[in-house]
Amino acid sequence: MSGTLYGVGLGPGDPELITRRAARLIEAARVVAYPSLAGGESFARAIAADLIAPDAREIRMDVPMTRDRAPAQAAYDAGAAEIAAALEGGDDVVCLCEGDPFFYGSFMYLHARLAPRFTVRTVPGVTSLTACAAAAAMPLAARNEVMTVLPGPLPDAALRDHLRAADTVICMKVGRHLPRLRALLTAEGLLDAATYVERATLGAERVMPLAEASDDAPYFSMILVAKGTDPWL
Amino acid sequence: MSGTLYGVGLGPGDPELITRRAARLIEAARVVAYPSLAGGESFARAIAADLIAPDAREIRMDVPMTRDRAPAQAAYDAGAAEIAAALEGGDDVVCLCEGDPFFYGSFMYLHARLAPRFTVRTVPGVTSLTACAAAAAMPLAARNEVMTVLPGPLPDAALRDHLRAADTVICMKVGRHLPRLRALLTAEGLLDAATYVERATLGAERVMPLAEASDDAPYFSMILVAKGTDPWL
Repeated sequence: MSGTLYGVGLGPGDPELITRRAARLIEAARVVAYPSLAGGESFARAIAADLIAPDAREIRMDVPMTRDRAPAQAAYDAGAAEIAAALEGGDDVVCLCEGDPFFYGSFMYLHARLAPRFTVRTVPGVTSLTACAAAAAMPLAARNEVMTVLPGPLPDAALRDHLRAADTVICMKVGRHLPRLRALLTAEGLLDAATYVERATLGAERVMPLAEASDDAPYFSMILVAKGTDPWL
Repeated sequence: MSGTLYGVGLGPGDPELITRRAARLIEAARVVAYPSLAGGESFARAIAADLIAPDAREIRMDVPMTRDRAPAQAAYDAGAAEIAAALEGGDDVVCLCEGDPFFYGSFMYLHARLAPRFTVRTVPGVTSLTACAAAAAMPLAARNEVMTVLPGPLPDAALRDHLRAADTVICMKVGRHLPRLRALLTAEGLLDAATYVERATLGAERVMPLAEASDDAPYFSMILVAKGTDPWL
């Protein structure tokens, strides 16, 4: 009988934000899998490090961050094949996922490859979205407010349309797009409503008005824009 | 010295989806606060029940679910006053919040009332959003896809515009709006892309194509629409 693949959300980075179910699954895992930046650290593994059994087998997927998709696809193909072999051998595999597995997470690529052939269970995790809101002490949305999640690399026109249509907008994957996003928000009269959050829940967490953020943002950064149409009182 | 108010996300309902930090804070709490439906159960308290110390003081806010806002506002005013008194007496207060405190959560109303006067810390939780995605085995968004969260009670025109603009749409607060939302999605050619999820992570969880859902949905239900513009491979 084949094993089960668990896609386990670890939350935004602070190991204390791992759920009890995720912690139990990782502690009991004989095989864990995780992505890492090619040649570098695995953020997912670092979050869960204290929970991984010393004798657990580790399947590491070195995923290059390139604009061309083919190298990453090849890394997920190879990882999926190794995981499939473990599942076929009867082992369960716990795949470690930063944040939530289905929210801009790399687990989606494994899910697409393996769910047609194996039993897959997904354990949701705390997303960077609400972790950033907590860090910024900023409610995201209430009652009938509309919230949109916008990847920063999108073109200006698309960003502008969504900025106008929603009550709350979260720009993810800010990184090198920060100056362009700030110019756009300024032109829309929304700079004062924009908060910048970097590395939420980690030791190096930083929160400030977007107006004060420097131009060179890391990949793990976010801009929160709440128009405050509803006074929440 | 005044105590600290903690707004603690409990996740979507399964107590195993409580984070380790939330669990520790609740176990150590001498005073807990939570909303309940006037005269009825508190869902938040039920999720955390096993963690609350037998001798903890409990501040219960009976919040009526009426279209008129005044009765709920009065309930939060009274709750905030009781919590403020405990904080002034030097006790920390742990406020139990379904899902995440800042994501369509009632904690926002306490935060607005108490953050100007007291130290408030928010502990993010797993949202119903990703819990429903996990239950439906449905990735939400990847790469540069745009995701919008839409409250079901919004008027048709607003819903339609957002349905067209985003790659993934999550309709929350479905309840009695289900027939109208289904008609709208059908007219937009999106019925086949729509999944219905009810009471995610609870014993009574149900997942099915929206086409097969019955007209009378409970409040804790959601419709997930993924256009699948990106093949995730």
